[in-house]
Amino acid sequence: MTPRQRRAGGRAARQALRAAPLAEAVRPVRAGLQGGAYSPLAEAEVQRIHRAALEACATIGFADAPPSGVAALTGAGAILGDDGRIRIPAALIEDSLAMAARDVTLFGRDPRHDLHPGGTRVHFGTAGAAVHLVDVETREYRECTVQDLYDAARIVDVLDNVHFFQRPMVCRDIADNFEMDLNTIYACCAGTSKHVGTSFTEVAHMAGAFDLIHRIAGGEEAWRARPFISNSNCFVVPPMKFATESCLVMEACIRGGMPVLMLSAGQAGATAPAPIAGTVVQAVAECLAGVVYVNAIKPGHPAIFGTWPFVSDLRTGAMSGGSGEQALLTAACAQMHRFYGLPGGAAAGIADAKLPDMQAGWEQAVSNAMAGLSGLNMVYESVGMHASLLGFCLESLILGDDMLGQCLRCVRGIEVTDETLSLETMRAVCLGGPGHYLGSPQTLALMQTEYVYPRLGDRTSPKEWAEIGKPDLIARAKKDKERILSNHFPRYIDVTTDREIRAAHRIHLPVAAVRI
Amino acid sequence: MTPRQRRAGGRAARQALRAAPLAEAVRPVRAGLQGGAYSPLAEAEVQRIHRAALEACATIGFADAPPSGVAALTGAGAILGDDGRIRIPAALIEDSLAMAARDVTLFGRDPRHDLHPGGTRVHFGTAGAAVHLVDVETREYRECTVQDLYDAARIVDVLDNVHFFQRPMVCRDIADNFEMDLNTIYACCAGTSKHVGTSFTEVAHMAGAFDLIHRIAGGEEAWRARPFISNSNCFVVPPMKFATESCLVMEACIRGGMPVLMLSAGQAGATAPAPIAGTVVQAVAECLAGVVYVNAIKPGHPAIFGTWPFVSDLRTGAMSGGSGEQALLTAACAQMHRFYGLPGGAAAGIADAKLPDMQAGWEQAVSNAMAGLSGLNMVYESVGMHASLLGFCLESLILGDDMLGQCLRCVRGIEVTDETLSLETMRAVCLGGPGHYLGSPQTLALMQTEYVYPRLGDRTSPKEWAEIGKPDLIARAKKDKERILSNHFPRYIDVTTDREIRAAHRIHLPVAAVRI
Repeated sequence: MTPRQRRAGGRAARQALRAAPLAEAVRPVRAGLQGGAYSPLAEAEVQRIHRAALEACATIGFADAPPSGVAALTGAGAILGDDGRIRIPAALIEDSLAMAARDVTLFGRDPRHDLHPGGTRVHFGTAGAAVHLVDVETREYRECTVQDLYDAARIVDVLDNVHFFQRPMVCRDIADNFEMDLNTIYACCAGTSKHVGTSFTEVAHMAGAFDLIHRIAGGEEAWRARPFISNSNCFVVPPMKFATESCLVMEACIRGGMPVLMLSAGQAGATAPAPIAGTVVQAVAECLAGVVYVNAIKPGHPAIFGTWPFVSDLRTGAMSGGSGEQALLTAACAQMHRFYGLPGGAAAGIADAKLPDMQAGWEQAVSNAMAGLSGLNMVYESVGMHASLLGFCLESLILGDDMLGQCLRCVRGIEVTDETLSLETMRAVCLGGPGHYLGSPQTLALMQTEYVYPRLGDRTSPKEWAEIGKPDLIARAKKDKERILSNHFPRYIDVTTDREIRAAHRIHLPVAAVRI
Repeated sequence: MTPRQRRAGGRAARQALRAAPLAEAVRPVRAGLQGGAYSPLAEAEVQRIHRAALEACATIGFADAPPSGVAALTGAGAILGDDGRIRIPAALIEDSLAMAARDVTLFGRDPRHDLHPGGTRVHFGTAGAAVHLVDVETREYRECTVQDLYDAARIVDVLDNVHFFQRPMVCRDIADNFEMDLNTIYACCAGTSKHVGTSFTEVAHMAGAFDLIHRIAGGEEAWRARPFISNSNCFVVPPMKFATESCLVMEACIRGGMPVLMLSAGQAGATAPAPIAGTVVQAVAECLAGVVYVNAIKPGHPAIFGTWPFVSDLRTGAMSGGSGEQALLTAACAQMHRFYGLPGGAAAGIADAKLPDMQAGWEQAVSNAMAGLSGLNMVYESVGMHASLLGFCLESLILGDDMLGQCLRCVRGIEVTDETLSLETMRAVCLGGPGHYLGSPQTLALMQTEYVYPRLGDRTSPKEWAEIGKPDLIARAKKDKERILSNHFPRYIDVTTDREIRAAHRIHLPVAAVRI
C-alpha cells in the first residue's frame, strides 16, 4: 500500500557495509538455528500418538526381521510370535529410549560443517534417490549419472543454506550395485566437505565401502573419531515390516562406527493409514522399533529418528510430496522427536512440479518453512527435488538456497529486547528527528545481522528489471550453475590417496573430471 | 525414497467418488479455519510489545490529526501537546479496547461469503494498490485499467480459496479521482459477490460513493443491514503521524456504516524501526490510536486492527515483501491481534519476483503459510501480487488459489481421535490383511474430506507429463483465465439498477463489458 521508498540518505554507507564479507557468527542465518515456535499437535495429542505407537509395537509388531535382528531384539526382551512377528513391550521401548544417543554430532570433513542435531536445532539438506536429472533447458527428464552426483555435491559445497549432502540421486550409469555404492561415496566426498549421507544396496558391499571410507578418512581410527558419512537406512518396509537386507546393512554400519538414519518411509493412504495422525503413529512405532534395534546392537550408537512419512494422492495412489498434508506430517513428526528428546529427521521441500516453476516454489517453501518452525533437526530432501522425488534439478538446488535462506530467517524468529523494541529510536526519529529511519545508526547496525538477502532472487523494481533486460530466473540459475561447476574443484581427496583408491576400487569418475 | 505406488485396487471407486461435488461443510478447507498453532513471540514478549506500544502512544504521540479528530480524541481523554501531537494515556487505550467491536461480520453480497474475522479464524484475500498489470506472455508491466479490476473480481468470484476481494489495483485509465473511486466500487461489485474492500481518495467523494453503494445494495437500509464493502484506510503515515485526509474519510465511513480497516503500513528500516520487534511496536501503537479514534467517533464500530508493516531491503531502502522478515512481521502482528482479542489483518503473500516464477512461489508461500498458522484473521495481498506490490497478475492469482489451498490445509491441522489414530485399521491391514491401505474403507472415506487436490498444480509422473506434452504451468493458468473471463459474467447488478447507476454516475465499464 505504501509507495515504494527510494531515499538517498545513507545509501552509500549501507552499500559499502554490505560489500564487506560477514563473519560466520554474525551472519543472520546459519545451521542449527532453533525452531519450535510451531506445534501442530497439542501436548495431549502427542501423548496419544505416543501411546498408540507403543500399542502398535506391543500388539501388531514387526515381520521379517533377519535372524541376527531376531536374536538382538529377543535378547533385549522383545517377543517373537508364532506368526513370525516381533512384538516389543512398552517397557523395552522405554529402556531403549533411555539409552539412546541424544548428543549426536554429524561430522563434516571440515569441522566448520559439523552438525549437532537435537533440541529444536534445524539443519537443511538434500536427500533422496531420484533416478532423473531435470534438464531445465530441454525440459527433459534424463537418467542421472555419477557426474551429476559429483556436480550436485560441488554445488551444495558452496551453498550457505544447504547444511549437509545426502545423496539425492542414484548413479544410473553404473550397472553394478557394488560399484554404484562405492562410487556414490567417492562422488559425494570428492565434491563436498559437508556431512554426507548415503545408502548401501547389500550388506556384502560394506567391507569394500568401509575400505574406501577409511582411505578417504586417512585410516579407520580417523574415521571412527569423526565419522563424516551417515547411513540413510530404510530398515522398515511400511506397514510394520523390517526390511531384511537393510537391517543387515544397519548392523554392519553400527559395527563400523557409522551413524544411522533409521528411516521409515510410509505413504499415507498406501503403505500407511490415510489419516495424518495414523500415519504419524505408524512412523513413530516403526522408528521406536528402530531405536530398540540399534540400541540392542550397540547402546548409545548415534542414530537419527527418521520418521519420513509421505503422502499419496488418493485419487491415484501416486506419491505426492508437495501437499499441505505432507507439510503437516513432517511438522508433526518433528514434534514427536522433540517429545522423545531424540535427534530426528523427516522430509520436506519436495515438489510435485516437474520443473522449477511457481508450483515448485510454493510446494517446496510451505513444507520447508513448517519443518523449520517446528524445530525439525534434519530436514531431508529440502532442496532440488521434483516430480515427487523422481527428478533432481541443479538449477532448482541453486535457487532453493535462497528459499532456504528465507525459511531460516523465519526459524531464527524475532529478538525482543529493550534495544529492538526501539522506543528510544522512535523518539529520536519522531520528535524533532528526520521522520524516517533510513539513516539511523540502528538501521545501519542491523542491515547485515538481521536481514537476509537473496543471492539470485530478484528484488529490482519493474523499471530496473526492464533496464537490465528482464532477467529470467532459471537462466540466472543456469549461469550460476555453470560458474560453480567450471570453477569449484575442491580437491577434498589428495592425489596420493586418490591414486590408492583408484588402485583398490573401480572409480567411474575420471581423474580429469575431479581435477585431482 | 519409496518407489512411486501405482495400484489398481479401489481406483475406480476412488475416482467415481472424486467426481461427485463436495458439500461445503465437508470440503477439506474453507474460509474461517482456525489457526494459531504457530506463535513467533513468547507470552512475555507479547506483553513487552504491548507495554512499549502504550508508552509510544503516551509519550511520542501522533502528529497531523484533522480538527475533527483532535476534537474526538481530546474529547475522549487524549492530550493535545504544544507540539501539535496527540498523546494517548494508557487508560484511554484500555477503555477503547473494552468498547471496541469484537464480533465483526464482513458481509458478502451473497451470505455464503460472509466472513467472521476474530479468534484465530483465517481468511485469505486480495488487496493492494498495484499500478501495473503483469502480462505473462509479453513480460510487460503495463498500466492497469478498470477492465483489469473487473476481470480480477470475476476471477476471485470463482476461486474457492480467495475469500474476499479488496481492490488489488488502481484504475490507471481513469484520470479523475472521484470517478476512479466510484468505478472501483462498481467494477468490484459487478464482478464478485464476495466481501469487497476499497479506498477513497478524499472525503468529498464519500457522498457520491455512498449514493452508488446504496443503489447497489437496494437502498441505505439494506446497505446498513449488511455492509458488503469495507474501507481500507491508511489513517496513519508512519512513523506516528495521522494521515489527515484519510482520517476524514474514515470518519465519513463510520457515519455511513462502513467497516473500517485501520491500516498502518510502515516499512521496517524506512518508515518504521529496522528491528522486527520495533516495527511491530510502532504498528501496534498506531493501530491502538486507531482503536481510540474509531471508538471515539462511534463506540463499537466494526474495525479491523490493520497492522500492515512491510520490510525494506536495507541495501537500497526499497520495499521488499517476499522476505522471511516480512513473514515474521506479519505473524507477530497476528499474535498481537490475538492478544487484544480484536479482529486483525496484515499483509502476506507478496512476491518481489516480477513474474509468477519459482521465486514468486516460495516468496508468496512462506508468508501465507505463516500468516495462516499464526491465526491471522484477514490475510491481505495474499495472492497475485508481484514486484513488491507494484504489479498484479491474473495468472498468478489463479495459480495462487492452489497455493492457498495448500496453506489452508496446513491451517486446518491434524485431527487426533481414536479413529484417526488408526490402530484398528493398522491391525486389519497388517495382521492377515492386504498389507496396504489403498482399498481400506478408511482411505476411501477420507479421500475427499482430509485431502486437498490442486486444480492447476501438476502431479503427473514424468512419463505421464511427457505424454500430455509437458504442459507449462503459466500457459495452463492463462488458458484457465481465458475460460473464466469469457464465461463468468455474474450479473450481480440487475439491469434496472445498472441503468439507474449509469444515469447518476459516469461508469467507465461499458454495458457490453459487464453483459448486464
